[in-house]
Amino acid sequence: MDKFQLLKNKTPNKLKILNDPIYGFIQIPNTLIFDIIEHPYFQRLRRIMQMGFSNLVYPGANHTRFHHAIGCMHLMQKAIRVLRFKQVSISDEEENALYIAILLHDIGHGAFSHALEHSIVNGISHEEISLKFMKKLNEEFNGQLTLAIQIFEGKNPRKFLCQLISSQLDVDRLDYLKRDSFYTGVTEGNISSDRLIAMMNVKNDELVIEKKGIYSVEKFLIARRLMYWQVYLHKTGLVAENMLVNVLKRAKELAEKGVELYASSALHYFLYKQITKENFTVNTLEMFSKLDDYDILSAIKEWTNHQDRVLSTLSKMIVNRKLLRIEMQKNDFPDNYISKKQEKTAKKLKIAENETHFFVFKQQISHIAYNFNKPILILNKKGKLKDIAKASDQLNLQALTKPVVKYFICYPK
Amino acid sequence: MDKFQLLKNKTPNKLKILNDPIYGFIQIPNTLIFDIIEHPYFQRLRRIMQMGFSNLVYPGANHTRFHHAIGCMHLMQKAIRVLRFKQVSISDEEENALYIAILLHDIGHGAFSHALEHSIVNGISHEEISLKFMKKLNEEFNGQLTLAIQIFEGKNPRKFLCQLISSQLDVDRLDYLKRDSFYTGVTEGNISSDRLIAMMNVKNDELVIEKKGIYSVEKFLIARRLMYWQVYLHKTGLVAENMLVNVLKRAKELAEKGVELYASSALHYFLYKQITKENFTVNTLEMFSKLDDYDILSAIKEWTNHQDRVLSTLSKMIVNRKLLRIEMQKNDFPDNYISKKQEKTAKKLKIAENETHFFVFKQQISHIAYNFNKPILILNKKGKLKDIAKASDQLNLQALTKPVVKYFICYPK
Amino acid sequence: MDKFQLLKNKTPNKLKILNDPIYGFIQIPNTLIFDIIEHPYFQRLRRIMQMGFSNLVYPGANHTRFHHAIGCMHLMQKAIRVLRFKQVSISDEEENALYIAILLHDIGHGAFSHALEHSIVNGISHEEISLKFMKKLNEEFNGQLTLAIQIFEGKNPRKFLCQLISSQLDVDRLDYLKRDSFYTGVTEGNISSDRLIAMMNVKNDELVIEKKGIYSVEKFLIARRLMYWQVYLHKTGLVAENMLVNVLKRAKELAEKGVELYASSALHYFLYKQITKENFTVNTLEMFSKLDDYDILSAIKEWTNHQDRVLSTLSKMIVNRKLLRIEMQKNDFPDNYISKKQEKTAKKLKIAENETHFFVFKQQISHIAYNFNKPILILNKKGKLKDIAKASDQLNLQALTKPVVKYFICYPK
Amino acid sequence: MDKFQLLKNKTPNKLKILNDPIYGFIQIPNTLIFDIIEHPYFQRLRRIMQMGFSNLVYPGANHTRFHHAIGCMHLMQKAIRVLRFKQVSISDEEENALYIAILLHDIGHGAFSHALEHSIVNGISHEEISLKFMKKLNEEFNGQLTLAIQIFEGKNPRKFLCQLISSQLDVDRLDYLKRDSFYTGVTEGNISSDRLIAMMNVKNDELVIEKKGIYSVEKFLIARRLMYWQVYLHKTGLVAENMLVNVLKRAKELAEKGVELYASSALHYFLYKQITKENFTVNTLEMFSKLDDYDILSAIKEWTNHQDRVLSTLSKMIVNRKLLRIEMQKNDFPDNYISKKQEKTAKKLKIAENETHFFVFKQQISHIAYNFNKPILILNKKGKLKDIAKASDQLNLQALTKPVVKYFICYPK
Repeated sequence: MDKFQLLKNKTPNKLKILNDPIYGFIQIPNTLIFDIIEHPYFQRLRRIMQMGFSNLVYPGANHTRFHHAIGCMHLMQKAIRVLRFKQVSISDEEENALYIAILLHDIGHGAFSHALEHSIVNGISHEEISLKFMKKLNEEFNGQLTLAIQIFEGKNPRKFLCQLISSQLDVDRLDYLKRDSFYTGVTEGNISSDRLIAMMNVKNDELVIEKKGIYSVEKFLIARRLMYWQVYLHKTGLVAENMLVNVLKRAKELAEKGVELYASSALHYFLYKQITKENFTVNTLEMFSKLDDYDILSAIKEWTNHQDRVLSTLSKMIVNRKLLRIEMQKNDFPDNYISKKQEKTAKKLKIAENETHFFVFKQQISHIAYNFNKPILILNKKGKLKDIAKASDQLNLQALTKPVVKYFICYPK
Repeated sequence: MDKFQLLKNKTPNKLKILNDPIYGFIQIPNTLIFDIIEHPYFQRLRRIMQMGFSNLVYPGANHTRFHHAIGCMHLMQKAIRVLRFKQVSISDEEENALYIAILLHDIGHGAFSHALEHSIVNGISHEEISLKFMKKLNEEFNGQLTLAIQIFEGKNPRKFLCQLISSQLDVDRLDYLKRDSFYTGVTEGNISSDRLIAMMNVKNDELVIEKKGIYSVEKFLIARRLMYWQVYLHKTGLVAENMLVNVLKRAKELAEKGVELYASSALHYFLYKQITKENFTVNTLEMFSKLDDYDILSAIKEWTNHQDRVLSTLSKMIVNRKLLRIEMQKNDFPDNYISKKQEKTAKKLKIAENETHFFVFKQQISHIAYNFNKPILILNKKGKLKDIAKASDQLNLQALTKPVVKYFICYPK
Repeated sequence: MDKFQLLKNKTPNKLKILNDPIYGFIQIPNTLIFDIIEHPYFQRLRRIMQMGFSNLVYPGANHTRFHHAIGCMHLMQKAIRVLRFKQVSISDEEENALYIAILLHDIGHGAFSHALEHSIVNGISHEEISLKFMKKLNEEFNGQLTLAIQIFEGKNPRKFLCQLISSQLDVDRLDYLKRDSFYTGVTEGNISSDRLIAMMNVKNDELVIEKKGIYSVEKFLIARRLMYWQVYLHKTGLVAENMLVNVLKRAKELAEKGVELYASSALHYFLYKQITKENFTVNTLEMFSKLDDYDILSAIKEWTNHQDRVLSTLSKMIVNRKLLRIEMQKNDFPDNYISKKQEKTAKKLKIAENETHFFVFKQQISHIAYNFNKPILILNKKGKLKDIAKASDQLNLQALTKPVVKYFICYPK
Repeated sequence: MDKFQLLKNKTPNKLKILNDPIYGFIQIPNTLIFDIIEHPYFQRLRRIMQMGFSNLVYPGANHTRFHHAIGCMHLMQKAIRVLRFKQVSISDEEENALYIAILLHDIGHGAFSHALEHSIVNGISHEEISLKFMKKLNEEFNGQLTLAIQIFEGKNPRKFLCQLISSQLDVDRLDYLKRDSFYTGVTEGNISSDRLIAMMNVKNDELVIEKKGIYSVEKFLIARRLMYWQVYLHKTGLVAENMLVNVLKRAKELAEKGVELYASSALHYFLYKQITKENFTVNTLEMFSKLDDYDILSAIKEWTNHQDRVLSTLSKMIVNRKLLRIEMQKNDFPDNYISKKQEKTAKKLKIAENETHFFVFKQQISHIAYNFNKPILILNKKGKLKDIAKASDQLNLQALTKPVVKYFICYPK
């Protein structure tokens, strides 16, 4: 197939192999994939950390979305090899579309991951932005991404292709759990992506796991749950992320009032404009493609000297890692507990009461370990399928389908 | 303290450091410990594999009880360091006793682990034999093992000392799960011994785990359960182990009838004598200390040519890894299913019907993931203790307290 | 000792343990060390990558100077434990000074490591700046860093204390080689820090290696050499670093002419002022302490739109990873080879000839694998010392004492 | 191709995937390979440790020749994939022959590796025995091993096929260095098999390494050298191996005199018969195929009680790990040094002077790190080949071509 030709001696200057501390070597399968990786949109992911401020808790966690996406592509290569070995037919075109779809599945993520979505880029999800990027790239690459986009949107009739990109056991999760566990040093979150992939199969066009992989799936679910509560929802990380959201919200508030703020042109654009899903133009996409962790953190560093007390105080706390205190519990906090903290804070920081919400706030978090609406299917030897929650002989996975809810409150020390 | 002097330049010929693929380096803390390790009783453990015939399934699993015991000692050093850092007082004498107790906790294990207990060394458990060894060594070492024995027997008033040796989260398990997972390559069984030890504390003289270790404990329980079903109770391993028991039973039967059998003197002793708890003398102990995997497997190899058809057939099947077929299920097998298999086998192998039970047999296995009678206690920040099964916010560990029962049947292919 | 009290239950909010993907857990030994780590000067290291632009080649290499410094402290704890076990006396005060000295040994490094030293912060080395930071901190901490400074300056009469901080086998190298190898995924550069430390001893106040560690030292030297040529001096990394130097030089040129440049206040300070060793005041130090990778890279991103053609072109090339071509060889390049490239470049990029040196330049690099002036000493069993280059039985380490020189030239594709 | 059909659903009972602690999963490529692995000749390798008595020094080193052979097959799969990617044509038949040849390359190894060759199976090398096994298997498998045998014998015109099986950088070494380093815990011997394989290519039908792999080859040679001196020729290991040779020699001496010895029938055969290359019949091969570590060690255990003082003393020393003392140095030992030790030993052990050579003996060992007669060839970008010893820019690999010679003497403590 012409357009997917292999990277051979003909293209000696094209990078063929990447080192990965986790998988050893990662091979770039062909020149189209290579060119997509080289595109500035994709290179931007080098400047966005996968885990945002988690490095304040786990100093090893500085890995980037770039590396994660490349890792996903590697696991996809393995998955395709396994499925073909089991005589699932996957065409070369589908293969390539899977690589593209998984490489680009997170390309719409903003700087510091989710923080932007809750502050300055509202009303449009990162998935929607990913789709915009993919469509733009599809134009540049003369339609070669069409099938990838169909799969990314979940519209391909062969469901397993879509499930490899997005499901409870997709290649994305197989990489990020492994990768985040590796870089944080939380070895308990480590999963055996290799074994899970080796157990994959396809039945009735659905992605399924063979029965002897049942303990591996259980283990995967438990490891994921552990990673959520111990890492992704770690108290210090939560504080830092919320403080980041607040400092950006404050900046936007000031921008709306016309106050001048140090900001790169990309950040300036999103601070001073009201972007919604409706007015998210090609130009907006271009500006978005310039925005990364460096814009945000360098601005915050500068804001430490801003005359606005709320902005500068929050900024200093973040930069010097003097974070708010956090309390977390199973039940909600009473309103007067918060109001008292706010009063105290107003005095202590010499700010108005209606500004204390930047420093004193509560929130509810919730996590579902297993979503029974989109079950992980187990294939037994007789070819029958069963929801893992029912196939498991003991673990009472049913319990994992209930969301766990916790509440936290933050306030100055 | 004289008797526990460090291994220093004075004793340059004494081995100080051992390589361990898992922990890097293991230090032998003093000369008493060194001398115990050098004792022939302990050196015997070099010739007993930790996982018996599991290497027929997992070819990497050839690690020995010797290495496991040494690994336990290493983890005990870590545990003591952590507890002392948390201001739990542990005297030098107690420290040493803990090393001795954990080194020797399994010294009474027979060749091929549990197989002997079910065939030629009946009526006495390996724990009882361990105790006999410890008492004998205590004589040789002039009473220096007295405290270790008290701890091993669970009789020390400071309960946590005993719990470090034997409990649901003892140092034994912390090593063997990690080690077995490592050598089998079943990475999913890997546990973070380091983190679990870092979370240890003592409250009311009980060994407890600090609250932020709760996910690690859950993970540990799930990993252990996975190891049981995927490794320790792996179908092929079960078949091989039961065939081993049967070949030894048959040999004993023949020995009782006076049939001559190739056997080392140690094996000969246990085949031709009826050993019970009552007549297990010092001499028996000495013979037991000569018996290891090499006696058993070299005899079986020789028995492949024995004239007894049952003995030689079983032996050949083991040596050449032509194992019986196994079926496993949640419900018991009907009696006539077995009797039909037995009829068929009698004809096929040309043996008497009353000999078919060596080739056709069923069995029930059962495993409890968490024993709520001896709970793992979680210590919260206010200093209160809670059973992990109740402290866990979701996992429904309660479900893990119910035994999982399965049935299997073996018969010739 | 009051001032070095352990981090115990009294200070429950002080972070005690850090995760490290390489070593597992790292313990912070006491509150003084903790407070130094918390200081904004030290926290700055979180925002400086250890390997600068090497992540353009090895996407996993995003680890920070913060993590490296902490890792060094961990290895220092091990080294002290080993040496004390071998009856080398090290006082509590010396122990603490070693922790401080190793934590701070690199605190004077600028953003993107060495790039600053060759562009905007001239005439003063990072070691000198480290010393300034240490003296400033010593004031803040009431003289508690005095001994650490003496050791850092190499002025302590017990030479081994200084050698642990700086020598051919110091703790710094033991961590960075291991860490850089780990994060790049270049497993061949991995060294056994544990074994090298286990082989350390002190003789005549010199840090020495016991004879049976000789192969480990050889291996260490070879691994280091491999890391230099394969990683630190990797062609793509060299190009990127030199382009970074050039873009900063150009910016400084423009600044000197009064051209306006987007820059954070810290970067602005160093672009628009002429800083030398002589006028490096406390205020300069304060500004330096604000400058990190985020200032540099966010400025370069913005400069991609600057009207100066040289500045914007270089910036775009860096941000989008469209790097110059590089050729490397053992011999120097002839002058006319370069001048031809420059002519071509002037035309292609539409810039003046005297500006082409930003895009076309050659350089000589040189690396010595083993410096025989400060030999690594091997201690044999009779207590005699020998230079490793002579103690090695075959490897001809002598050859490693000669510098390897290479030349490279860069120019636009 | 019929005879090499993949292991698919049709053969559900055939083992498809093996766990390996080093590589994760190893796939068995087809049913022919599967059947060879299942053959009793090959299964015997499960009972022969790869490193003989090295586990007396490195307690983790209990891995078997079985596992090593399987590991080689896995690396061969990788090598073939890499070479084909680089457009080296390898037919399906050649591929299969490579798997067979590498699986069986060591099948002629005796129990405890080299010890047998120097004691009871003289005058025929293990390579010659391997060939006998392969020819026998070729009959059983109807000629399907013919091409494999040709490659194993080095007779295939495409030299690189033979070099993959046997050369200075063959797949055998790539596995055993990695595996032995892994199981001993001597991490410094670890090599990057993956990278070396990734750098393989074929030029003029020779196996070559691409230029950018040069540092990896250097590192490989140094790691190998380190493994030899630190592990394979470790003093304690040398003592134990020589004692093993001596105990077998003594047994053979006694057997020749008609003294009765406990021995399995296979061991009996080789003790009481004089086997030479000339009378090594099919029957001899069959007996050889029964002989493994278990025969040897269980006999030695029994011999601890033999009336022959030399035999029993040596046996006890081995079993209880009370080994002889060893001295090693660069120069030969003077004759009178030995004769004095022998006199002393005769008295101490109450044996005749002409029996002391079993306890007091000296030996010369020699190792060449790099054999320039069969150079490792480096392929530069212009397609030219160079011996690595000349291509390396500094390391003076020339020095590695000289054999290092050492002398050791053993005697009772």
